[in-house]
Amino acid sequence: MDLIEQEIQQLARSLYHRAAEDKPSIFDAQDWLGKMIEWSLEDESLRVALFRFVDVLPSLDTAGEIGRHLEEYFAKVDHAFGGLVFLAQALRAGWLLAPVARQNVTRLARRFIVDEEPAALRSALETLRKEPAAFTLDVVGEATVSEKEALATQRRYLDLLQSLSIISASWSVVPQIDQGATGPLPRINLSVKASALCARFDPLDPDSERMVRERLRPLFREAARLNAGLTLDMEQYSLKNLTLAIFRGLVEESEFASQPHAAIAIQAYLRDAEDDVTELIGWARARRRRIGVRLVKGAYWDSEITWAKQKGWPIPVFLEKPETDANYERLASLLLESNDVVDAAFGSHNLRTLSYAIVTAERLGLPQRSYEIQMLYGMGEPIRHAIIQNGQRVRVYLPVGKLLPGMAYLIRRLMENTSNTSFLRQTYADEEQIDKLIASPAPAKSVTQARKTTRRRAAVNAVEPFQNEPLLDFAREENRSRFAGFLKEVRKKFTRSHPLWIGGDEIETKSWLNSVNPAAPEEIVGRVPVAAREEAEHAVVNALEFFPQWRRTPVSERATVMFRAADIMRRRRVELAAWEVFEVAKSWREADADVAEAIDYLEYYGREMLRLSEPRLTQKLPGESNVYLYEPRGVGAVIAPWNFPLAILTGMTAATLVTGNCAVVKPAEQSPVMGAFLMEILREANLPPVACQLLQGGGELGAYLVRHAAVQLIAFTGSREVGLEILRTAYDHQPGQEHVKRVVCEMGGKNAIVVDQDADLDEAVVHILESAFGYQGQKCSAASRVILVDEVHDLLLERLVEAVRSLKIGPPEDPRNFIGPVIDAAAQSKIIGYLTLGKREGKCLLECEAPTEGFFVGPAIFSEIEPEHRLANDEIFGPVLSVIKAKNFGHALEIANGSAYALTGGVFSRSPAHIDKARREFRVGNLYINRGITGAIVERQPFGGLKLSGIGSKAGGPDYLLQFLEPRTISENTLRHGFVAPGELK
Amino acid sequence: MDLIEQEIQQLARSLYHRAAEDKPSIFDAQDWLGKMIEWSLEDESLRVALFRFVDVLPSLDTAGEIGRHLEEYFAKVDHAFGGLVFLAQALRAGWLLAPVARQNVTRLARRFIVDEEPAALRSALETLRKEPAAFTLDVVGEATVSEKEALATQRRYLDLLQSLSIISASWSVVPQIDQGATGPLPRINLSVKASALCARFDPLDPDSERMVRERLRPLFREAARLNAGLTLDMEQYSLKNLTLAIFRGLVEESEFASQPHAAIAIQAYLRDAEDDVTELIGWARARRRRIGVRLVKGAYWDSEITWAKQKGWPIPVFLEKPETDANYERLASLLLESNDVVDAAFGSHNLRTLSYAIVTAERLGLPQRSYEIQMLYGMGEPIRHAIIQNGQRVRVYLPVGKLLPGMAYLIRRLMENTSNTSFLRQTYADEEQIDKLIASPAPAKSVTQARKTTRRRAAVNAVEPFQNEPLLDFAREENRSRFAGFLKEVRKKFTRSHPLWIGGDEIETKSWLNSVNPAAPEEIVGRVPVAAREEAEHAVVNALEFFPQWRRTPVSERATVMFRAADIMRRRRVELAAWEVFEVAKSWREADADVAEAIDYLEYYGREMLRLSEPRLTQKLPGESNVYLYEPRGVGAVIAPWNFPLAILTGMTAATLVTGNCAVVKPAEQSPVMGAFLMEILREANLPPVACQLLQGGGELGAYLVRHAAVQLIAFTGSREVGLEILRTAYDHQPGQEHVKRVVCEMGGKNAIVVDQDADLDEAVVHILESAFGYQGQKCSAASRVILVDEVHDLLLERLVEAVRSLKIGPPEDPRNFIGPVIDAAAQSKIIGYLTLGKREGKCLLECEAPTEGFFVGPAIFSEIEPEHRLANDEIFGPVLSVIKAKNFGHALEIANGSAYALTGGVFSRSPAHIDKARREFRVGNLYINRGITGAIVERQPFGGLKLSGIGSKAGGPDYLLQFLEPRTISENTLRHGFVAPGELK
Repeated sequence: MDLIEQEIQQLARSLYHRAAEDKPSIFDAQDWLGKMIEWSLEDESLRVALFRFVDVLPSLDTAGEIGRHLEEYFAKVDHAFGGLVFLAQALRAGWLLAPVARQNVTRLARRFIVDEEPAALRSALETLRKEPAAFTLDVVGEATVSEKEALATQRRYLDLLQSLSIISASWSVVPQIDQGATGPLPRINLSVKASALCARFDPLDPDSERMVRERLRPLFREAARLNAGLTLDMEQYSLKNLTLAIFRGLVEESEFASQPHAAIAIQAYLRDAEDDVTELIGWARARRRRIGVRLVKGAYWDSEITWAKQKGWPIPVFLEKPETDANYERLASLLLESNDVVDAAFGSHNLRTLSYAIVTAERLGLPQRSYEIQMLYGMGEPIRHAIIQNGQRVRVYLPVGKLLPGMAYLIRRLMENTSNTSFLRQTYADEEQIDKLIASPAPAKSVTQARKTTRRRAAVNAVEPFQNEPLLDFAREENRSRFAGFLKEVRKKFTRSHPLWIGGDEIETKSWLNSVNPAAPEEIVGRVPVAAREEAEHAVVNALEFFPQWRRTPVSERATVMFRAADIMRRRRVELAAWEVFEVAKSWREADADVAEAIDYLEYYGREMLRLSEPRLTQKLPGESNVYLYEPRGVGAVIAPWNFPLAILTGMTAATLVTGNCAVVKPAEQSPVMGAFLMEILREANLPPVACQLLQGGGELGAYLVRHAAVQLIAFTGSREVGLEILRTAYDHQPGQEHVKRVVCEMGGKNAIVVDQDADLDEAVVHILESAFGYQGQKCSAASRVILVDEVHDLLLERLVEAVRSLKIGPPEDPRNFIGPVIDAAAQSKIIGYLTLGKREGKCLLECEAPTEGFFVGPAIFSEIEPEHRLANDEIFGPVLSVIKAKNFGHALEIANGSAYALTGGVFSRSPAHIDKARREFRVGNLYINRGITGAIVERQPFGGLKLSGIGSKAGGPDYLLQFLEPRTISENTLRHGFVAPGELK
Repeated sequence: MDLIEQEIQQLARSLYHRAAEDKPSIFDAQDWLGKMIEWSLEDESLRVALFRFVDVLPSLDTAGEIGRHLEEYFAKVDHAFGGLVFLAQALRAGWLLAPVARQNVTRLARRFIVDEEPAALRSALETLRKEPAAFTLDVVGEATVSEKEALATQRRYLDLLQSLSIISASWSVVPQIDQGATGPLPRINLSVKASALCARFDPLDPDSERMVRERLRPLFREAARLNAGLTLDMEQYSLKNLTLAIFRGLVEESEFASQPHAAIAIQAYLRDAEDDVTELIGWARARRRRIGVRLVKGAYWDSEITWAKQKGWPIPVFLEKPETDANYERLASLLLESNDVVDAAFGSHNLRTLSYAIVTAERLGLPQRSYEIQMLYGMGEPIRHAIIQNGQRVRVYLPVGKLLPGMAYLIRRLMENTSNTSFLRQTYADEEQIDKLIASPAPAKSVTQARKTTRRRAAVNAVEPFQNEPLLDFAREENRSRFAGFLKEVRKKFTRSHPLWIGGDEIETKSWLNSVNPAAPEEIVGRVPVAAREEAEHAVVNALEFFPQWRRTPVSERATVMFRAADIMRRRRVELAAWEVFEVAKSWREADADVAEAIDYLEYYGREMLRLSEPRLTQKLPGESNVYLYEPRGVGAVIAPWNFPLAILTGMTAATLVTGNCAVVKPAEQSPVMGAFLMEILREANLPPVACQLLQGGGELGAYLVRHAAVQLIAFTGSREVGLEILRTAYDHQPGQEHVKRVVCEMGGKNAIVVDQDADLDEAVVHILESAFGYQGQKCSAASRVILVDEVHDLLLERLVEAVRSLKIGPPEDPRNFIGPVIDAAAQSKIIGYLTLGKREGKCLLECEAPTEGFFVGPAIFSEIEPEHRLANDEIFGPVLSVIKAKNFGHALEIANGSAYALTGGVFSRSPAHIDKARREFRVGNLYINRGITGAIVERQPFGGLKLSGIGSKAGGPDYLLQFLEPRTISENTLRHGFVAPGELK
C-alpha cells in the first residue's frame, strides 16, 4: 500500500470511529415506518411493497383508502415475520390507521424534505448553520408538463431566492462555511433542474436549449443581485449533454461572464463523466472562467439501466459499484488538480471517498477552504458531523417543498439508503467490517468476464436470438444531424416515379397517383402508376404460378431473405425515416420508430418461421412416426394502411412471404412511395422476383383482390368499415374457388385510458398526451377516450390541457413540432366535423390553432362526454380526446369496456387490487398499466385487438405466423413385416 | 450350482464345441449381401436400410427400379465405412446391378425358403433325411384377405399333403427320425396357419372360429388318410386364444378323437404361456387325449411390443430376453412332466435351452424318442448337426413357397439372427464368452426397477401426462360379452325421451323428433323435443349472461370438469358404445373407438388449456412486465355431425367450454340421443348448468345460431355445402354484433390412397378395405378414391374386389357384420344414385347385395374412373370406391391433388424417394404412409383438412384451442420513481 493510500485509510478510519458513535436518523426505528424500513433491509419483497406503498400514500385521502392500499400491498408480501405481524396490528388498529400512517410518513418525509414555508425553512437553515453547515436548496415539485408549470417553477425559484435573502439578512458570518479560499462565499445557494423550466425538455427540440437558457437568465440575474450561488443539477443521462450545453452557453453570455458562483453537477457513475469533466475544464481554462463542479455518484442508477435495457441502448452507467467509486476518485483528483478554474464540491456520504478527496487536496497543497463536501439533508448525520469536526466546509443539499410531489425524491433517497451497496447501510445496518468499507475500490473483474462468456456462447448459434432494433438516440448530436441531412437529400428526390412490380417486371400504367406532403400538399413526394383490374389479375396469376416453387424453397432461404432485407433497412434507416416525414407527416421519432419496427418484423418473423419449420413429433411410439408441421397456403393479398407505412406493410408482407406464400401487395394510396421502397429492398435482398407483386391503387383494387378466387390469404390492417367488408366478401365463396380464404384483419380502436384516484398524475399526464396526440392521434392504438374517476378529474384535466396547449404544431420536418398535419384533406374535414359535434355533445376544454396551409387540425380536448355520445364511440383518428367522468374505478372500467372496439387500453393506478381487476376485466387486446398505450414493440408486446378491432390475431407475437400457415400431420407406419427400427422400442 | 445345472452346462458346452467347428451359412459372407449382413451387425442404420431394401426387392421388376431403390435406401445411411464403399461399388457396376442384386437375394432367400415345385422340394427333404432330420412344411404366402384366397390356401395345403405323400412313398424308415417312443411317426408333417384360412380372422367375429374349423376339417381328414402330422402354428397374440379354441374344438370332434398327430405351438415369450400350457395339459388329461406341443420362443416380439404400445394395451411379452429364456425352461419342464398326454417338441437354436430340455427329459427318465428338437431351415446348421450327433430327433421347420410373399418370413428370420440377443449371433458373430452363453437365464432386475422409478416420478405431478384411452381389446372374451350384454340393456331403454337443457332447466317443446335405428328404421331409439327460434334465443341469452362467470372460473376448475366427464364416460363406456350401434349403426369397434376418442378429447383439451393458461413472459426486461395470455371469446355454437356422434360433439363442446366460452350445442338430428347423453355426463361432472345449453333440431336451428349477433364462435363439422354457407353467414356482420365471429369449420373429403409399384400389396389391400368401407365409408377421412399405378392396378384390384366381396353385411348389432346400413333414407338414395352414375362413368367391378330392410347399400367398386368424373370428385359418403389408373407415381400424386378437398390421403410405397415426394407434394391435412387413412388419434394425429375440407384447424392438436381463445398482451410499467423491483436489473 502506498503512502497516500495509507493516509486515506487512516483518515477514513478516524472519521469512521468518530461517526460510529451515533446512528443516523433513518436507521433509528422509532416508529412503525422505521421498523418497516429495518425489516425491508432483510426482505426484498417487503422492500418493494413498502416503497410502493410510501410512493402512493400521500395521494390517499381517506382512512379507508389508506387501509385498502395497506392491505393490497402487504397481503402478498412473502415476509412471514415482520410484515404479517405488522399488517395484522395495523389492520386491527382500524380507524386509528389513517392518521397514524400519515403521521408516520410525514415524519419520515420531513426528515428529508423541508417545508417551503419561511418559518420552517428559517428554522432548518439556522439549525444547520449552527453545526456549522452551509446549504443549497433543492426545490421538489411535480414534473413540469406545460409552459404554465415551467413558468410557475421559474417564479418559485425567484421567490425562494427572495425569501432566502430576507432570511439570511440577519446571519453573521461563520468562517468555516462562509469563507472560500479566494474570498467570502454566498450564504444563499440554490440548486436548479433544467427540466423543471420547460414543458418538454428534449434534446431533439432545438427550442429546449434556448427556452431553458431564457428561463435561467432571470434566475442568474437575481442570484447575482442577491449574491446567491446557483448549481445546475444533473438529471437523466438523456438530458446530460443538453444540460451541459445550457450551462456553458449561459455562463458564456457576457452578462454572466463574471458571475462567480455558477456550478454544475457531474455524475461519477457515468462512463462519459471523465470525458465530460476533461472537456469542461478545458473549456473553462480556455475562457479563464471559474466554475463550480459538484461531483456526485448519481441518483438514477436503477432507472438508467432499466431505460437502456428497454431501449436496447448501451448502458451509460458502470454496472459495478467499485467501478463508480474508482471513477469518483479519478474525477476528484482531476477536479482538485484543476483548482485554477474549478471550485470542487464532493457530494458523498462515503467516508472512503471523502477521505480520498481530502487527502488528495492536502497532497496537492490546496487549502481546506478551496473545496467543499456536500451531503444530503436527513442522511448520515454522524458522518456529516465527523467531517465538520475535521474542519472541512460541508454544504447540505436540502430539498424543500410539499410532500406529495416530493415522493419521487423520497423514494430515491430511501432506495439509496437501503440498497445493498449503500455505505450508510453497510456501516449502520449491516455492520460491515471497517477494513472492507475503507479499502480502495477495485472493480470486480470476474463478474464482467462471466457476463461476456454468456454473450459469446449465445453468439455461437447460427442465427442470433431476436433482439429489437434500438431506436435512434436523438440525445446524440450525430443522429440529429444525420436525420436533418437526409431530410435535405430526400427532398431532392421528390416527384420521382416508382413502378409497379408484376411477375418480376417493372410495370407502368396510363393512370398515375401523386403522393403529396400532408404538411405542404403542393409538394409531390412521389408518383406511382395505378393498377387496374388487368394488372391485378396479372399479379395474382403470376403469384399463383410461382407458388409451388416458393413453397419448395427451404425455410432457411426464405428467412435469410428477410434478414437481408432487415440489413438493408438498417443501412437505409435514416433515409427511409426521412421519406416518412414527408409522405405521411410523421415526426422524426415516429418515423424512426416505424422503420425500426419494420426491421423488427423482418428479423422476428424470420426467426419465428425457423422455429415453426421444425416438424414436431406428436408422440413417441414404436412402429409409427407422427409429425406435425406447417405449410404455406398459397397466394396472399396484403392490404396495408398509411399510418405505419413501412412497419405494418413490412410486417404483413414478411409474414406472407417467409411462410412460403406468394404475395400481392397493395400499399395504401396515401403512402405508395414507402410501398415502392419495401419492394426495392426485398428485391435487393434477393427475394425471387415473382414471389412478390407490387400493385398501387385504392379501395377497388383491394376489393378485387379480396374477391379473387385464387387468393387464399388476405392480410389487412385498416378501418373497421373496410375490414368488415373484406371479411364479408372473403368468406363469400366464389365460383372456382378451391379453398376457404383466411383473413388476417386488424381494424380500428376507440381506446381508453382510465385514471384511478391514486394514480401518479405526473406520469398520467405525460403518457395520456403522448398516447392521444402522438402522430396526431392517427394510430389505431391511440388514446381517444380518457376516463377519469371523480377525485382526479379536475386536477388531471387542468394539467393535461395546459400540457397539450404547450405542444408546438407545424410541419414534422421541423423537430420542434410535436403535432403535424393529418394524412389528407378527407381526414382533416372528418376530424373538423367531430370538433363541431364535440362542442354539441360535451364541453370543449381546448382547441388549438393550427396552420392553415397543409392538412393541419389543432389538438382538442372535450370534457363532459357521456358514454353514449358519438365522441365516445366513433373512431375519429385525429388529435381529439374525449374525457368521460366515472364514479369510481369499477365504473370507469365498465365505461371503458362499453365500446365496440377493444384494441388497446390503459390504466393509471397504484392500487394492486385495481390493477388486478383491470388485468382481469379490462377486455382489450393490449392492456397497458401505468404507461402509454401506443408503441407496441415486436415480440415484447404482441399487438392486436378484440371485438370489432380485429380477429384476435397478434402481430409480432408467437401465434401470428400460424395464420399464414396450414398445419399438416404426416403419419408413417415404419413397421415392415415386424421389423422395427432400432431404438423405437425403448 | 446344483447337479442338474452342472449337467446342463456340461452338455451345452460339449454341444457348443462340436458346433463351433463350422459357421452357419448366414454368417458366411460369401457374396455382397452376406457382407452387408455382416456390416449391419455393427451399424443399426445400415441394418434398417438393408432389411427394408430386402423387403421391397422381390417386388422390383427392372434393373432401373432396383438401382433406384438401392440408392434411395443406402444414400442416407450413416455408415462411413462399409455402406458407402459398397454403394459406390454397386452404383459403378451399372447394368450389372439388377441381375446381381436379384441373384444375391434369391440365393439368400433360398437358404430359408424352399421352392414348392416337387423336384426342388424332394431334393431338399431328402438331403435333410440324410442328416438325418425330419421336417415339417410351412407354406409361406400372401396374407389371406378374401374367402377366395382362404379357399386357395386350403387347396394348397391339401395339394401339398398329396405331393408329400407321393414324394415320401419311396422313403425308407430312418429310426432316429421316424420312430417315436410309442411307435412309428408320420414321415409327412405340415404346419398350418389359421389366419391363412379365413378372409378376416377376428376374435370378435363368431364366424371366424367356425369357419376356420370348417376349413381345417378336410385337412385333418386328409392328414389322417395319408398318415401325416399337422401342427397349428401360433401367430400374433391377439389371435392366440382363438387359435387355441379352434385347436381344442377340432380335436374334440369325434371324427378326430383318435387322430394322434395333431399339435399346437406355444410361445414362451408370452406372459400368458404358462397358464395356457397348464390349461392345455389339464384339458388333454381330462379328455385322455394325446397332443403335440411345439414350444418356441416366439417370432413377433418387436411387433407385439409395437402394437401394444400403439394401442396402449398391456405388453403381452416379456421385455427382457432372460425372462423369456427362463420361461421357456419352466414350460419345457412342464411339458416333459406331462409326457403322459404331451408329445413335446422344442423349437430353439439355443444350446443352453436345448441342453436344459435334454437333461430334464433324462432326469425324468424319458426316452430320447419321447420328444423332439425343432429347428428352422437354413439356420444354425452346425448346432443342428451337433444335436443330431447327440442322438436327438431333430425336425426342421421348412418354409416352402414363392420368394415375394416369403419376404415377411425372410425378414423375421434375418431379424432374429442379427438381433443383439440372438444365440446364433452371439455365438458366431460376436463370439460371446461360452460361459455367459450357457449360463442359467436370470432376469436383469435392475432394469425393471429403473423403469418403475421413472413411472412413479411422472405420477407425482398433479395432472398426469395425457395418454390415449385404449380401445377395448375384443380378443378378450369379457369385453365381447360385456358389449353383448349392454346391447341388450340399451334396447330396453329405446323410445325414451330426452329433454333440451336451457339455462340449467329441462325444456320440452311441442314438436318432437324420433331417432331411429338405421338397421331397422321402425325401431325408435329415442325421442327429443325440437327447439324453435324461441328456445334458441333463450339458449343464447342464457349463455351470454353466464359468460362472465364462466370466464372468471379458474382454468383448473374448468379442466377438472372435463376430467370428471372423461371418468364418467370411461365408466359408461360400453353402454355409450352400445347406444351408438343402434343410433348411428356403428360396428362394435367403431362405436367403441368413438367413445374412446370422446374421452381423449376431454382429457387432452383439459390438459391443453392448463398448458395455455400459463401467461407467458414475452421478454425479460427490468421495469416492465409483459405477459401474453389467452382468454375466452364468449358464446360458442357447436354444430355437430352424426358420424362421430359422441367424439366430434364432445371434442367441439369440450374445446368451447374448457377455454371458458359458454356453449349452445346442437347435435345432429340423426344422433340426438348421443347429444343428450353428453349433456347428462357434463352435468354429472359438475359443469355449471348454465355454461352449456342443449338444443335439438335441424339445419334451420343451426342457421339461426350462426346468424345470431351474440354468438362469437361457431364450431362446425359437417358437409362442405353447409360449411361454406356457415362461413358466408357468420362473416356477414349483423346489426348489433360487436365482434368478428370465429368459425372453426371442418368439412368433407374425397380422400385418395395412392398405391405405388413397389407397395406391399398385402398391406395395401387390407388398409384400403378398412379405409374405404369402415363404417360404410361414412367418415370424412374415408378413402373414396384409390389411385393405382399401372403396374399394380390389375393385381391389387383383383385381390381388393375379392376381399370386399368377403365382407358380411347386416345389422351392426351382430359383430360378424363388417358393413352396416348408412345413416338414413336420404343418404341411401343419394348413394344409390351414385351407383347408377358410376356405371355410366366407369366400370362396376363389384356391387354387393344388401338387405332390403333398413338403410343398407352394398359396397361397390368402380374402375376406369377418370379424374374429371363425378365419381372422382363428389363426396359420396358411402361404401363406394372409385379406382383411377395412373401412369406413374408422380401422375398418381397429381391426380390425388386434383381434388377440391384435401383432408386425408394415403400412400403405399416402399421407395424412400417417393415417400419423400408424397410428404412434400401430397397436399392434404393428414397424410398417411403405408397405413390406413382413417382413425386419427387425438394428440397423435391432429386431424383436419385444407382446401374445401376445412379451414386448416386441427382437432386434437396443439393449435386447436387457440381458435377458441383470444390472445391478450398485458404490459405493466413496474418502475416507480426510479425504483425497480430487485432482481429485475440482472
